[in-house]
Amino acid sequence: MITIRDVARQAGVSVATVSRVLNNSPLVTPDTREAVRQAAALLDYRPNANAQALASQVSDIIGVVVMDVSDPFFGALVKAVDMVAQRHRKYVLIGNGYHEAEKERHAVEVLIRQRCGALIVHAKALSDEELSAFMAQIPGMVLINRLVSGYAHRCVCLDNASGAKLATRMLLDCGHRRIGYLASSHGIEDNDRRREGWRLALQERGITPPDGWIGTGSPDMQGGEAAMVELLGRNPQLSAVFAYNDGMAAGALAALKDNGIAVPRHLSLIGFDDISIARYTDPQLTTVRYPVASMAKLATELALQGAAGILNDAATHCFMPTLVRRHSVALSQAAPDVTAFNL
Amino acid sequence: MITIRDVARQAGVSVATVSRVLNNSPLVTPDTREAVRQAAALLDYRPNANAQALASQVSDIIGVVVMDVSDPFFGALVKAVDMVAQRHRKYVLIGNGYHEAEKERHAVEVLIRQRCGALIVHAKALSDEELSAFMAQIPGMVLINRLVSGYAHRCVCLDNASGAKLATRMLLDCGHRRIGYLASSHGIEDNDRRREGWRLALQERGITPPDGWIGTGSPDMQGGEAAMVELLGRNPQLSAVFAYNDGMAAGALAALKDNGIAVPRHLSLIGFDDISIARYTDPQLTTVRYPVASMAKLATELALQGAAGILNDAATHCFMPTLVRRHSVALSQAAPDVTAFNL
Repeated sequence: MITIRDVARQAGVSVATVSRVLNNSPLVTPDTREAVRQAAALLDYRPNANAQALASQVSDIIGVVVMDVSDPFFGALVKAVDMVAQRHRKYVLIGNGYHEAEKERHAVEVLIRQRCGALIVHAKALSDEELSAFMAQIPGMVLINRLVSGYAHRCVCLDNASGAKLATRMLLDCGHRRIGYLASSHGIEDNDRRREGWRLALQERGITPPDGWIGTGSPDMQGGEAAMVELLGRNPQLSAVFAYNDGMAAGALAALKDNGIAVPRHLSLIGFDDISIARYTDPQLTTVRYPVASMAKLATELALQGAAGILNDAATHCFMPTLVRRHSVALSQAAPDVTAFNL
Repeated sequence: MITIRDVARQAGVSVATVSRVLNNSPLVTPDTREAVRQAAALLDYRPNANAQALASQVSDIIGVVVMDVSDPFFGALVKAVDMVAQRHRKYVLIGNGYHEAEKERHAVEVLIRQRCGALIVHAKALSDEELSAFMAQIPGMVLINRLVSGYAHRCVCLDNASGAKLATRMLLDCGHRRIGYLASSHGIEDNDRRREGWRLALQERGITPPDGWIGTGSPDMQGGEAAMVELLGRNPQLSAVFAYNDGMAAGALAALKDNGIAVPRHLSLIGFDDISIARYTDPQLTTVRYPVASMAKLATELALQGAAGILNDAATHCFMPTLVRRHSVALSQAAPDVTAFNL
């Protein structure tokens, strides 16, 4: 491998001079700079990014930690970060935390060790204390979908409970009274908040949902199918279901179709997130829009500002979800006591 | 930030000694090693990965270049790499190449500059010559879904043309004669091969497909919907369609449903890849299975072997696609000259 020493020898200068040229130091004459550039081009020399990062204590890498990049929600998040990164000629390093404390910690630590100046972290298993300690150390670290006290200006979050209330109230307004919830089996805050929003919206109308109205599965299509099958088997006579996310709602659609239950004629269904699949299910999903691309874009800009030391520490960044009306919700056909599932 | 100098001062040893301990050099007594470890723990010192990578000329990073990590096919690829990486206690750095030569080149170069010893690259826009030059330089670089002459032992590829023939022959065996193709607008080899496989299978039965049987769109749901609308508008009286990938097939389903064309009763549809969405469309998609997880796992193991200099250079790694029969293909109801679209 060609080293900086080979370039120095070729250019007839010292290693320190080559280093100064590579790091754009002003202490080099134009002629010397040109001689070094020609020598580097002739030898096809690639500057070592590790050496450059050490010398300047910054790297051209933006780090991102997500649950799992193969999940479409997190794919959209990472893509939005990458769009901002490309504009700033930075590069994205992605780590999966899988909603496990040990893996989230490891992902953040590896990115810090790589001297990522800007870090966008979606962490759900780590405690507020541990995240605060990381943020105290790394000024360019920003949290997404999480609010940690004392660092509100570096947290880009969504009001999950309000989104769940929006969805549940829409179903109530359509005359539904027995409304189930498809819960995520990941024991994370988002699921608690969405379940709580669903429960509060029902309580506003005097309905106390029993635990039997909740089916649980992994937050994806397979999990949604399993959770819906669980609900169907239990026969809680629901006429509508609110799903933790669109993937689960899409899986629930498959389970309902297999059982001859038409959506929305026999049962109304509403998702969360508005990932692209929501427009391609049959029927198209009514859902709660999670503006993940806008949030990830903002988080990346804040992280770059934090790394540059120009962050406004009085600002807060909490987004509100909105309803997207498509074709999976209809007016309730049945009085509340009619068995929607026994068709 | 705590540096190696602080640790040396705390432990009462030289910086060089701390460095030896961090790099597991045998030239340190157990007592000194313990003193340095205690000092590092006391100060909460994080070794700088850049410095460690420089010292040892290896990094704990496995690099991956894909088209776009938010595409579900590439999400599955990256996830399979991450599974192997975790087992080897390595970390994955992902770059998007977007099927553009400049971005693919940049992604590979940045990963090389990070001194990734192992690199899994899905590049379609770069020439064989340029990829060969990279591979000559980096023994741990492996290509996925590409075969470059002279580096067959470091290429993990799929016979795309055979997969397209399998799909088209299945439709022919069901009595279909007018079979369209939904093409990807990305001008990449995979699309050429799949279109060629489709064309050859038709020609085996004496059918020469006109260009009017091809609709083109981006290789995703939106693109499949647009390409199917294009075909419908042109009215080429097709009774079956083979799609470049499952995303396009799922989008085509939406367009067909909007136009009252039932799949498979009025029109048969077959996809490619077998991504998870194929099991959740209505009807479930018959498709060609692309074993991307197995291929990515093998590519990662080869890359690690290449980085360690223990690669078998006589082996080749070409996978064969297989058919997955679900519910989007039926026997042709119509004689070849009946207008399937005019229902």
